[in-house]
Amino acid sequence: MRVLLIHSDYLKYQTKNKTRIAEELREDQKEGYFTDSLVVFTAVEAEDEEKPQEIVQNVVKEIEDVFSKIKAENIVIYPYAHLSSSLSSPDTAKSVLMEMEKELKNKGYEVARAPFGWYKSFEVSCKGHPLSELSRTVTTQKIPQKPEEGEKEES
Amino acid sequence: MRVLLIHSDYLKYQTKNKTRIAEELREDQKEGYFTDSLVVFTAVEAEDEEKPQEIVQNVVKEIEDVFSKIKAENIVIYPYAHLSSSLSSPDTAKSVLMEMEKELKNKGYEVARAPFGWYKSFEVSCKGHPLSELSRTVTTQKIPQKPEEGEKEES
Ligand SMILES: [Mg+2]
Repeated sequence: MRVLLIHSDYLKYQTKNKTRIAEELREDQKEGYFTDSLVVFTAVEAEDEEKPQEIVQNVVKEIEDVFSKIKAENIVIYPYAHLSSSLSSPDTAKSVLMEMEKELKNKGYEVARAPFGWYKSFEVSCKGHPLSELSRTVTTQKIPQKPEEGEKEES
Repeated sequence: MRVLLIHSDYLKYQTKNKTRIAEELREDQKEGYFTDSLVVFTAVEAEDEEKPQEIVQNVVKEIEDVFSKIKAENIVIYPYAHLSSSLSSPDTAKSVLMEMEKELKNKGYEVARAPFGWYKSFEVSCKGHPLSELSRTVTTQKIPQKPEEGEKEES
């Protein structure tokens, strides 16, 4: 799994057209507006198929770790296939994203999840401080020692 | 090289702190605001070190291809290390990004390039139509047959 974590003043999205793998939505899920969020752009990868539960546990740890440092108000899980060139099946992706949401909610966070399989317009801001933009590769392995924050310095 | 191409109503950025690999900037480069742009988020990768000129030629072809279909007004090259877990050296990245800018300008496009090696706040919008969000892996190989547009359908 690849994730891009953005500490954001605001994120806004609106669903446009469905793709053939679109999840069914209630009317209130078709658009969203969130402020002071940790936005977790997420690509579920082929290699996550084998042990999706472990991937969920590990990404939740990463999200909690970053969230505790930046003190955002809420978490928004945003499906983002463009972070990987080796994607899981859509079914696995959907279920992993939903499990991430559930797990984080169980831990007491305020969590939203943007719809899977829809074209969406969006606007996002990134605060620009060193921890406001981080990426991680999440595997089933014990999470490796993280490189120094700010390691990706051309962003 | 990994690129994420966003057809954007607007992109705004402002430089914050320098990193140790920051490029020197003129005052007018420290912030930028662009409308109706094709924003090219770009990560130069380790394997691009060998033949950077070919990578530049190939990514320029990809950009021209997408640009011709969406009819944006201008192109913004935006360094984005978070798209890859295997980056080139900062020197190669800088020079590849500058060559992309130069090459596209030579071809007559209106082109801007966001600063390399600075923490930046930014805001970006994505229009949400099927070609408004595409990612590509660019190599020195002949560009492979592209998958159908909209292939990354959970985004
Ligand atoms: Mg991105």
